[in-house]
This record gives sequence, C-alpha cells and structure tokens, in this order.
Amino acid sequence: MRIDQQQITEVNTRNNDIHNRQMDILKQLHSGSRIEGIIGKLIEFQVALPSWALGAGGTRFGRFSYGGEPGSLEQKIEDIGLIHQLTRTAGAVSLHIPWDIPDDIPAVKELADSLDITFDAMNSNTFQDHEGAAQSYRNGSLSSVHEAAREQAVEHNREVIRIGENLGSKGLTVWLADGASFPGQYNFQTALKHTGESLKTIYAALPDDWKMLIEYKPYEPHFYSTVIQDWGTSLMLANACGEKAFTLVDLGHHLPNTNIEQIVATLMAQGKLGGFHFNDSKYGDDDLTVGSVKPYNLFLIFNELVYGMENNAENPPLSWMIDASHNIKDPLEDLIQSLEAILVAYAQALLVDREALSEAQQYSDVAQCQEILQEAYRTDVRPLLRESRLRSGGAMYPLQVYRDLEIRKKLIRERGLKVRATGL
Amino acid sequence: MRIDQQQITEVNTRNNDIHNRQMDILKQLHSGSRIEGIIGKLIEFQVALPSWALGAGGTRFGRFSYGGEPGSLEQKIEDIGLIHQLTRTAGAVSLHIPWDIPDDIPAVKELADSLDITFDAMNSNTFQDHEGAAQSYRNGSLSSVHEAAREQAVEHNREVIRIGENLGSKGLTVWLADGASFPGQYNFQTALKHTGESLKTIYAALPDDWKMLIEYKPYEPHFYSTVIQDWGTSLMLANACGEKAFTLVDLGHHLPNTNIEQIVATLMAQGKLGGFHFNDSKYGDDDLTVGSVKPYNLFLIFNELVYGMENNAENPPLSWMIDASHNIKDPLEDLIQSLEAILVAYAQALLVDREALSEAQQYSDVAQCQEILQEAYRTDVRPLLRESRLRSGGAMYPLQVYRDLEIRKKLIRERGLKVRATGL
Amino acid sequence: MRIDQQQITEVNTRNNDIHNRQMDILKQLHSGSRIEGIIGKLIEFQVALPSWALGAGGTRFGRFSYGGEPGSLEQKIEDIGLIHQLTRTAGAVSLHIPWDIPDDIPAVKELADSLDITFDAMNSNTFQDHEGAAQSYRNGSLSSVHEAAREQAVEHNREVIRIGENLGSKGLTVWLADGASFPGQYNFQTALKHTGESLKTIYAALPDDWKMLIEYKPYEPHFYSTVIQDWGTSLMLANACGEKAFTLVDLGHHLPNTNIEQIVATLMAQGKLGGFHFNDSKYGDDDLTVGSVKPYNLFLIFNELVYGMENNAENPPLSWMIDASHNIKDPLEDLIQSLEAILVAYAQALLVDREALSEAQQYSDVAQCQEILQEAYRTDVRPLLRESRLRSGGAMYPLQVYRDLEIRKKLIRERGLKVRATGL
Amino acid sequence: MRIDQQQITEVNTRNNDIHNRQMDILKQLHSGSRIEGIIGKLIEFQVALPSWALGAGGTRFGRFSYGGEPGSLEQKIEDIGLIHQLTRTAGAVSLHIPWDIPDDIPAVKELADSLDITFDAMNSNTFQDHEGAAQSYRNGSLSSVHEAAREQAVEHNREVIRIGENLGSKGLTVWLADGASFPGQYNFQTALKHTGESLKTIYAALPDDWKMLIEYKPYEPHFYSTVIQDWGTSLMLANACGEKAFTLVDLGHHLPNTNIEQIVATLMAQGKLGGFHFNDSKYGDDDLTVGSVKPYNLFLIFNELVYGMENNAENPPLSWMIDASHNIKDPLEDLIQSLEAILVAYAQALLVDREALSEAQQYSDVAQCQEILQEAYRTDVRPLLRESRLRSGGAMYPLQVYRDLEIRKKLIRERGLKVRATGL
Repeated sequence: MRIDQQQITEVNTRNNDIHNRQMDILKQLHSGSRIEGIIGKLIEFQVALPSWALGAGGTRFGRFSYGGEPGSLEQKIEDIGLIHQLTRTAGAVSLHIPWDIPDDIPAVKELADSLDITFDAMNSNTFQDHEGAAQSYRNGSLSSVHEAAREQAVEHNREVIRIGENLGSKGLTVWLADGASFPGQYNFQTALKHTGESLKTIYAALPDDWKMLIEYKPYEPHFYSTVIQDWGTSLMLANACGEKAFTLVDLGHHLPNTNIEQIVATLMAQGKLGGFHFNDSKYGDDDLTVGSVKPYNLFLIFNELVYGMENNAENPPLSWMIDASHNIKDPLEDLIQSLEAILVAYAQALLVDREALSEAQQYSDVAQCQEILQEAYRTDVRPLLRESRLRSGGAMYPLQVYRDLEIRKKLIRERGLKVRATGL
Repeated sequence: MRIDQQQITEVNTRNNDIHNRQMDILKQLHSGSRIEGIIGKLIEFQVALPSWALGAGGTRFGRFSYGGEPGSLEQKIEDIGLIHQLTRTAGAVSLHIPWDIPDDIPAVKELADSLDITFDAMNSNTFQDHEGAAQSYRNGSLSSVHEAAREQAVEHNREVIRIGENLGSKGLTVWLADGASFPGQYNFQTALKHTGESLKTIYAALPDDWKMLIEYKPYEPHFYSTVIQDWGTSLMLANACGEKAFTLVDLGHHLPNTNIEQIVATLMAQGKLGGFHFNDSKYGDDDLTVGSVKPYNLFLIFNELVYGMENNAENPPLSWMIDASHNIKDPLEDLIQSLEAILVAYAQALLVDREALSEAQQYSDVAQCQEILQEAYRTDVRPLLRESRLRSGGAMYPLQVYRDLEIRKKLIRERGLKVRATGL
Repeated sequence: MRIDQQQITEVNTRNNDIHNRQMDILKQLHSGSRIEGIIGKLIEFQVALPSWALGAGGTRFGRFSYGGEPGSLEQKIEDIGLIHQLTRTAGAVSLHIPWDIPDDIPAVKELADSLDITFDAMNSNTFQDHEGAAQSYRNGSLSSVHEAAREQAVEHNREVIRIGENLGSKGLTVWLADGASFPGQYNFQTALKHTGESLKTIYAALPDDWKMLIEYKPYEPHFYSTVIQDWGTSLMLANACGEKAFTLVDLGHHLPNTNIEQIVATLMAQGKLGGFHFNDSKYGDDDLTVGSVKPYNLFLIFNELVYGMENNAENPPLSWMIDASHNIKDPLEDLIQSLEAILVAYAQALLVDREALSEAQQYSDVAQCQEILQEAYRTDVRPLLRESRLRSGGAMYPLQVYRDLEIRKKLIRERGLKVRATGL
Repeated sequence: MRIDQQQITEVNTRNNDIHNRQMDILKQLHSGSRIEGIIGKLIEFQVALPSWALGAGGTRFGRFSYGGEPGSLEQKIEDIGLIHQLTRTAGAVSLHIPWDIPDDIPAVKELADSLDITFDAMNSNTFQDHEGAAQSYRNGSLSSVHEAAREQAVEHNREVIRIGENLGSKGLTVWLADGASFPGQYNFQTALKHTGESLKTIYAALPDDWKMLIEYKPYEPHFYSTVIQDWGTSLMLANACGEKAFTLVDLGHHLPNTNIEQIVATLMAQGKLGGFHFNDSKYGDDDLTVGSVKPYNLFLIFNELVYGMENNAENPPLSWMIDASHNIKDPLEDLIQSLEAILVAYAQALLVDREALSEAQQYSDVAQCQEILQEAYRTDVRPLLRESRLRSGGAMYPLQVYRDLEIRKKLIRERGLKVRATGL
C-alpha cells in the first residue's frame, strides 16, 4: 500500500496562513539564516525503524494484537514506506535476525529502494533459543561458561553480518541479554572475559566499512546482573575490540535518575558513541513512545548530541533508531508520534544559542545558562518541522493525514484482523 | 507421584549429633521455653503455593521451558504435595481462574485433602482477554470507561468466588492490572471511581466468611500509571468496601527504596492487612526467590508481622503466598528455597528480644536497638527449622532429599520434557 | 528598596510588535475568549514565598553565602515585595517560626500591606533544637516516646498559630521531620499513634477559619524511616483530625518515579489536598528551581490541579508556595525563574482542550489523548504570561528588568556582602 | 584516655564455655584448617577511621552535638586508639585537610605510633572555601572554568601530599564534589577535560610509592550532574593518569539498585580498584552504619573482594576506610558496630566454598550457587570474630566493654559537653 502523493500535497496547501506567520516570527526572533540552517538539518535527519516495531508489542502478562499487522518482511518494509512518505524522516529499516531473514534478497532490496529506504544496523538475537539450534541460551550466549554456546552465538552474529552485507547494511548492533537473576549464578570476571573474547571474534568478521555497536542495559530479562550493565563496561569492551566498535545508548537502559546526557557527552568526547535507540520510560525499560514522558530530558540529550556533532569530529555519524514497544497504540501512529517528538527535541537543541551559552558558562552565570536552554525549549518549534516536511514532500500534519486516509482500516482490509507480526 | 515417607525419615536420622549440639546452644542462649515456642510457631506456619508457580516463568523476551512441568490442575496439586511432604510448610494452594478451572471439583478436593492441602485465596484474571469473551480488557477492566467491560470483569470475579466456594476457599485476591501507559490516557478520578464501584459490586457477592484482598502495584504491565498504585489507594478502597476487605502486600510491588515494613506496621495497626505475597527483587517486580536478594529486609518485615500478630488483635490471620517467577531454576527447587528463606526470616523475627527492644526504644538507645535486631538476625536459626520439620514429619534438608531422590528426573519420565504448564 | 514603577512601564512598552502578533496567533488558534479566560486566571494566581528562601541555601557539605541577603524579617518581606512588583504573582509570604518571630507585629503587617503581600500558611519547626528549650528533638518531637518532648512540640505549634493569628494568616503547615535512621530505632505503630494524638491536640487549637496542612516525606533528615512517609499516612492523619486538616504535597518528597499527578488527583477527589510546595529534583529532595529538571511533569501535575479546581468543589482553594533551596543562584533571580516556570505550566494546563480529551478517553483513543496534551504543552505560552503581567502592572520580562536595574548590586550596597539570612 | 588492658582480658575470660562449643561446631562443619585460615585473615584485616568521624555528623537541617567530642587532632587519634584497643581492627587514621593540619608533626606521629595506628590515605577538600583563599570553589575546583580556581585546587592537593609524606601516609584520596545543579550550568566535555588535566598535574606530584584514589559519586552536593559521576568516568581518568591512579568505591555513591559487587569485580579484573569506603544507605548517600540496612549486599561485595584478592594479583592491596555520618549514635559506638559488621561480612565471604561454587557455576546449577552463598551467609560467624579478637588482645564483646567501662562518660568529664569536632 502506498499513499497517493497528491493527497499529501492537497492537505499541505490548506490553511497555510498561520503557518507562514509563525515562520515569520521565528525568523524575526532567531534570524532567517539560522532558521534556514535548522530546517536543512531537520530535512536531512533520518531515523531507522526496526522491523519488529510494526506489530503490537506486549509484556510478560500478555499481548493485545492489532489488526492489519504486517505478516512478512515485505509488509514491514511497506509499513515503513508509509511512514516515510508521510514524514520523510523514516528512511531506514533495522532488521532483526532470525525474525527477518529475507527469502529473496534482491527483491527486498528493490522494494526498499523504491520506497527510499536504506538498511541500517542489523540486530542479532541470542536471548531466545532458535528453532533447531543445538545449544540453548538459557544460561547465556556470548558470555556463557559453555564454549559450544559461545561459539554458536558468535557464529549467529557472523551470519547476521553476512545477511546484512547482502542488503547493504553497514552496522551490527549487539544487544547482549546475558545476565544472572541470582547472586553467585555466574562469576562476574569470567563472564566478562568470555564476552570480551566473543566480541573480538565477531569483530574479526566485521567488514572494513562496518561499525559494531555494543548496547548496555542494567537489568531485564535478568534481574540481578547483566554482563554489560553500563556504558563503562560497553566502552571498555568497545575499546578492546578496536576502532570500528562503539557504544550504543538506548534511552531506557539506565538505572533510575541516571544523567544520560552526560554519558552522551562523555562518549562523544571519546569518539565512541556509535548509535542511539529512542524510547521513553518512567520506571525501567518501559519502551514507551519517545518524548511521551520526559521530553525535557530528550531535549537535554539532543543538546549534547548537537554539540558533539558540531565539535567531536572523531566521533562517527550516529545510527539513529526508534526502539519502543507499541502495546496499546496503533504501531504506525505511535511511530509517527515518535518521529515528531524526536524532531521537536532536535529542533529545540539546534535553536540553543550556543555562543551565549558558552559565554554564560564562562562567567558561571547559572541563571542565565538556564534561561538560554529554556528559551530554546519553550519555543514552539513545530512550524519548523512542518516547513521541513513541506519542502521534502511529506505531510505537514502526518498523523492527521494518516487518520484522514484511514490507512489502518485499509491495512486491515488488505491483511486481515489476526495476522501477527514477528517480534516480542 | 509421592515420596515414600520412609525415605525422608531415614535421611533425617543420619548425622544428628551436630544438630543436637546446635539446638543445645540455642536453648542455652535463649532459654528452652522460648526455643520451644518458636519451634511450635514454625510448625504451624503454612504458606500457599500458587498453581501457576509449578511451571517455568518467563519475561517479555521469552521463556525457557522446564521438563516435567505439570500439565493439569491435578498435577499442579501433586507438585505442591511433594513440596509439602518435604517441608510441611506448603499446606495450601492458591488457584488462578481461568487457568485452573477444575473439571471435577469433588475429585480435586479429594486429591488436595489426601495431600493435606487446603484451598487458599482464589485469584481472578482481568489482565488478559479470555477466550470467547465479548469484551477486551485492553483498555481496562474494573476501571474501564466502558460499562460492558466493567460488568464482564465484575461477573468474572463473581464466578471466581463461586468456584472458590465449591472448593472451600475463603478468600478472593484482586490484582487489578488496570493502568495507563501514557499521560492523559485515562482520567485518574474517573478510573478510581469506577474501580471503587466495581469492587463494591464484587464485595456484595462475597460470602460472609470470606475476605477480599486488594493488591496494589505501582507499574507493570502499564508503565505510566496503575489504578491502584499504592497501599494508600488500596486501603481507601478496602475501607469503602467494608470490614471483609483488606489490603494485600506483594513484596515486589513498590517503588525503589520503599520502606515496606513500615507499611506493614501501619496496615496492621489499622487491622487492614489481609495477605502477603512473597518474592524478592532488585529492580522492579522481578519476582525472584524470596530472600535471595534482600534477606535483611525480609527479616525486618517479619519483625513487624510478628509484632502485629502479637499486638493487633483486630487484624485477621494473614493469607501467606509465594508469588515468584521461576525462570531459570527448577520451580520445585525454587519453591523449597523460598519456604526455607521465609522460615529463616520468621524464626529470626521470633527470636528478637521484644522486651529489651521496647526498653531500648524507650531510652532512644539507638545503638542498642540495632544490636538487638542484629543479635537475632545474625543467629543461625536453621537448626530450629530442621527441628520443626523433624517433628512434623518433613525432611531436615528438603532440597537435598529432593535432589537425592531425583524427583525432577522422575517427573520428566512421567510427564515428558515438553509439557507446558499454564501461567505466564 | 522598591522599584520605580515607571521603569517597569517603560521597558514594557518597547518592542511590542512581536508580542502582539504572537497574541493574535494564539487567539486565532484557541479562540479569543479562551485566551482571555486564561489570562484572567494567570493574573489571579498568587504563590507564597517562604521567608527563608531569600537567602542562600546550602547542603550538609557547606554553604556559599550571597551578598546582600536580608538580615531581618522586614528585609525578607521587602525582597518579596521586589519580586511581586516585577511579577505580580508573589503576593504572599510564608513565615517560619522561630526564624521569623516578628518584633513589632503592626509594623510588619503594615509593611506587607504596603507591598500588597498577605500572610500565607505559617511553618513550625521541630527538626532543630530551639535555644533554651528544655527538651531536645534529637529523638523526635510530635512522635517522640518522651511525653515532655511531645508536649513541647505541640505547644510550639500552638505558639505558631498564635503568631499567625496576629498577622492574619489562615493556615499552619506541619512538616514533621521525625523519623528513624536505623531499623528498630522506634516502634512504627507507637510513633504513628503518638503523632496522631499530637496532631489532634494541635488541631484542637486551630481557629475555625484555618487549615492545617500535613506534609509527608519518605526520607531526610532521617534515612531509614519517616513517621509520615507518604500521602497515605498523611491523609489517614488528616482524616482523623477533622475537616480542617489536609494533605500538603511537596514535589520533592517522593520516592523515585512516583506518579505525583495521580496522588494529586486522588487527594482532590477526596477533597483533601490543602497545599502545594513547588521545587524540582532529579534524585531526592533536591530543592532545585521548579521546572528546571522535569517541566513536563510539572505540566501533568497542573493538568490535574486545573481539573480538580474545576471539578472538585469540595476541595478548598490551595496554598501555593515555592520551597526551593537557592544554593548557587541569586535567590531573587531563582524565585523569578520559579514563578515563570509555574505560570508556564499553569497556562499550558489551562490550554488543554478538556472536552476533546474527555472524548478521546471515552474511546480509549490513546494516541489522541497524547496529542491533546502535547498540543497544549508544545505551545509557547510565554506571550500569555507577558500579557497578564502587562495588564497587572508587572514586567513583561521580569528577570531582564531585575538585571537591567542592577537590583542585587543595590541590595549589596544597602546591606553589605556578608549578612546571612536565617534559614538552612 | 586509654583502657587498662587488664580490664579487657578479664571480661574475655568469663563465660567462654559456649564460645568454645561454637568454635568446635564451626571447625567440625568447615574443617579446622579453614577456620584457622579465616581467623588469621580476620586478625590481619585493618580498617582506617577518618578523623572527621569521631564527632557527631549532621544534615542540612541541622546537627545534634554529642558530649565529649574530640577537640583536636590528638584527641581524634586517641579516640581511634580506644576503638583499636577494643577491636584490634582500627589500626589506621585517614586525615582530612584542612580540618586536620597537624601543628607538631613528630608529636602526632609519636602519639599514633604509641597507639599502633598508621596514617592511611589523605583526603583533600575542595568542596568548601578555605579561610583566606583567593578563589572560591562555589563554581567548581579541579573542573572549574576558571583557571585560577583550578590552580588553587591543584596546589591544595599538592599541599595535602606534602603533609601526608611527613606523616608517612602513602595515598591521596580525591573526592571531587564538583558538579552542576542545573542543566546547562557547565559544558560536560569541558568540565571533564579540565578535571583530567588537573588530576594529571596532581598525579605528577605523587611520590613513587603513593596511590592516588579517585572517588566517584552521582550526585550531592550538586543535584543535576557530578563531574565524576560513576566508576566508568573514574576509571577513564585513572587510566589517563597512570599506574598509580585507581578508582575508589564508596558504597553510598551509587544510583538506586546499582549492582556494586559487579563494579568491584570489573575493577579488580582491571587491576584498578584502589580503595573502599564503608557505609550503608537506603536512599542516597545516607552514610549510615555499614551493614545496618543491607548486610547481604555487603556480603556479596566482600564475596567479590575476597575473590579478587585471591585471583587478581595485579590489583594492589586496598585502602579500607569507614566513611559514615554519626548523626544520632555515639560515634565511637557506631564505629565499633561498623567494624563488627565489616568483619561479619568478610568472615562470611571467606567461608564461601569457592571450589563448590565454581563447579556449580560450570554446570549453571543456579539453585546450588544460591545454596552455597546462603550457606556461608546464614552461618553465625561471630564466634570467629570473637576468637580473632581474643587472640589479638582485643575485647570479645567490644561494645559491651565500651559501655561497661563508661567510656563516653569519662570523655565528657575530660573534654566537656560542648566541644565540637571539626567535620561536617
């Protein structure tokens, strides 16, 4: 299913008077050239959607299916295509193996190409047993005491790289769920050592133009210890692997009250921030819509990302991805809301008067520092997002168009009510 | 499957010399009559096992099955029978509807009877859609804005009461999973009002000699708000229902750093603590083996429970239940470890010199208060547990006997490797 | 020191073109009458400043003084007068006894009157020993095991009421710092019982037209238990006292991740929310500038407050107060920023389309509920604040005027660099 | 004041019958040679007491003085001497500059020598302004944007090294309180860079046989960011300094739910754990008596420390120190309780059957791993502590002797009720 571009254009041309007046005011307050610069960056910004996010998510207590879920990899990519058409921001897909092993690689590539979608970092899975696998990951994979389990997990990651190469991906994300639920269950030092060795073996198979992204997480699915529990551990492991290995930050993978923006700044100063997973949370890894719970935090993180992108030349371009669980909202609507929240925070961060901030910091003028950040944050930047979509062919109001065109209803008609997408 | 009692007795009679010397020292240090009193209380103490705890648990990331899981309600009760034979502490089962609707009630009762097992509080389930149900609980049950959903959920609870009456249960536990994952999703006041009304309607169907236990939980499966988020809300609702309604405390259902023992004390002072769910956690509702992460906390909670049982005559006898998720350990072993940890904490709490503590508190002698609690806690009370099991016909070392008799191997032989118990 | 009103007016009349255009757009988007209604409410909204907030705050690790701190109660009131002149929102002072015992009550009243400042709730202090007092509060006050300490603490609260009556205050805020730093230090049930009795005795001395506000806090200055640890305990105590007793919510007095807005909604539904202390925090009771860390949270709380003020007729008008610690910013600047953040959140909450929200909730249209809240939150409401100040005689840009007029410099010249205000 | 050794010996010889029987049972259960080995290690174990811990501590809300506090460095050392006499575990003092600048170095050394007390790591202080200092640390010290402030702070640390050299200390502990209370207050990358450079300059002045210990802490006294917020940052900085620089772990300096034992294991595997500060906490950096809130956690940490000391030859011997705040208990009693709790945890960790644990881990026998740890933890190891003190000339029951000899009363008589020790 694709949207008729004409329909998007039509809606965009309605009621533009207020939009233009809002743009005028923004230009007057912040200078036309700054505003133009920001719009340019918003247009460029692309976020990958993971293939597993197009269906309903769930919890250990169950899952409520959503009608019209994509039943194949092709349909998942088509769903991303719809979102990309509306937002012009979702120009990449992130696959998860074994859930998304493509049957016909050229066909899949062609489909993605036709939708202007590239293949971002590949995701391996060693937190579930694969059908027919000789070894169980019940007691760990890359960190396991059992050599055969480690080898199988390493080989799986290599396989993921091979699939990714065929698709044109340039990155491998390793989220290692390995951990312990009870004190004493494993030896911390041994588990860490095994993990380091496994990662190095995978790294050895990494193509030259690839990045390896090492995720960290303090808990879940294990509830006492996770082998890669924090950014410090991830960075240590990435450093040991080499210059193509980086730390990946998932917003939900932190203990309560962690200052995530400081972690971002530290990693970028080291040239070691490789990727970013967007979501939001109030308690743990809640995987809620990014920006739905702590939007100011998101802004502060983007404030560091923007600073780093401008000042840390040695840090590579980042892999951006949404990693949320759509338990009670239409996944496509949820993703549209996510992209909006990301761009709002990005635009606000771009609006920060960095020169003034730097000067206020020089004088330790704390009240003024706060004023400068809040000035940017309190500004309504949505006109900038609309303008950037207007220019790039997207919808000024993507969610409204999605609803007006009754896309979910059409997907249900096409695919049925009871298909279930692969994923959690 | 049942254990030959002879086998238990045999093991118990070996190597009793050290045990006897340990008992002698305990009696010398704490007086024989106090020790006898404690042993008597340990023998009496009975904890219900929930029917869903006999199979492997899981997380939203998956589940690793355990061989020999019980495939029917009867087999679940038999498993509890095994644990009860070994420990003499697991003399009750707590059923979950619709997972455990009995086909043949008299037969189930007879089976339980023959194993010396009673039916503790019944559990309703409105966090999952029941097959064929007209209404979905996706957007709530007892708190739903949709009247039909509320009515269906109320009727389900009434049905659970009816089943329970037939089995001889005397309690209904309502864990209301209703909540919101996003700000604005529901109106807090409306949701609370609907919940209060639904609970009253259920309460009206409660037999005179029953208790209604209202659980609270701050989050999960919803990640922004839970309708009954804390003890204050639960108590308010219980008070509004009437004198047969009580608050139930589940150890894992609290925000980080909550002083649970103080909540226990407050509720008992009000005569409103009705039940208790045992588990342990480091992060959230981790549902780990009770006592495996924070055993001192468990002791402090038992310290209040013992005080309350001795001083709050108006508080009813409590429904004790283990509510853990056995993700990576043999569920039966895990339950045996749980019962041991509960009794250790209970025995330590019984050992607290309450008179001395009260006096030290009178003088605000803080260091001495700490000494008195730690004196009890640092004492090795396991000989008291062994002695109580020796006297009641259980195994002094239940886990060891379970392993020596290779019970899991026998269960697998009997039931197969791939049965999957109902539950999460 | 007072500001020449002429200076404020002058600045206000500069550069109003953009302001007017922003107002036009807001009126077009939200209808002129809604905007007018909001401006009216913003003008009415008054927040009390506590007398101890005009000087620098500190931590247990020390305190860095600020030049020109007020050295007397009169100077504190004058400082509030300055803020009120600039913002027209700070029309009340909240006194703390014994720090602010007035020498000449009529003179103090006259001064306050001349500055358009009223006397909001009085604060008692039983967390420090008063000079010459017979009893120490080291081991508690209203909850103490020592009757004499309890009586002294009760009498102190009565004295605070008497002082307040003379000044025209209508409320008493009881923050009971009593608690335990070690398990066993006190008996929970006894401490709670004593507290209930002490509060009732104080309540008996409360004039008919007064409110008693009972604060809660989970920890600090004690680190194991606080007698009134949460809203549930506070509400229980307030209910036991009577209809003039209410719960007071301080934003910083919660465990990590607490859903405060839900507590607000629950209390208002009971007609029992009496007061509100504004500040912000990332970790504990950090007492940072309100809105500086979690502005969206503040908005969600105001969303409930607005709903409650419109729908819970039985709940009394609230006592609003800023309760922050100004450790590294000029206290007056910090308070101006605080008032701005409060009004921003209030205006956003007033902007929420409640009818649409209610309808979306009826349909469990979760994505739409989120859209409605974010629509209001993402709007730049600062023009509304400026307009309301313009109309009420305050400064459109209060912080800028404060700086342009070099008020701090003048205060230092007047009072010296090393005066130290009473407080923490 | 010193205790007559005769008095200690007398008490020790009373009632030894039960003690001997308890020792017999322990030897029978764990083999005599293992028990002897443990006793030997307990005798060797020495913990430094910080000079500021001998007086009462406080919070930002105030401080309740304790009678008989030491009014001079000499009296502080004498107090440690008393504790050391009773426990034989407190054989070192850790000084804090500028609070403890010695007037007469040879005399101080002689005094310490006579009490068998050595000088452990020195502590610098840049979180408070020093009298007469040119630069304020209000806006940071080693991390400050102001070069002069950085230089002054570096020079202060050098001065601390010089004083330490004269006393025979071999270590410098840097707790850098620098941080921000508001977003934007400083540039994270700049602050980190400055800190790294300052530390390197200090490191350059470090004598060859010294260690530099870099502490980390997530918050307080600043409440938004701390420059060295976690172990990852500390390790990065230590690595950049060189091989004499190490990370120091303070138990209270972690976010809620942090797995500290895993951090310990990771650091020891890197050979980079240099020191350890003991205390306990329920909420934040509560600085409660170690072992009073989470004793099992303390055991798990010691479990890793023991493993590391046995297996990580490249990690240096650790600096152990108690760093608690004695707000409501007699500081000397509190320290005696602290030492007891430390040795209990250490003895339990030494009792862990490491061979069996390693085997169970090899088989991923999770239940058995738990059994092995709990077997050690549930053992009453206090007879081992008593035996070790009996052999080393300390008191079997140090707190009881301290009370029986009425030492506090004698100190008050000697020093008066109102002396106030330096410190917080």
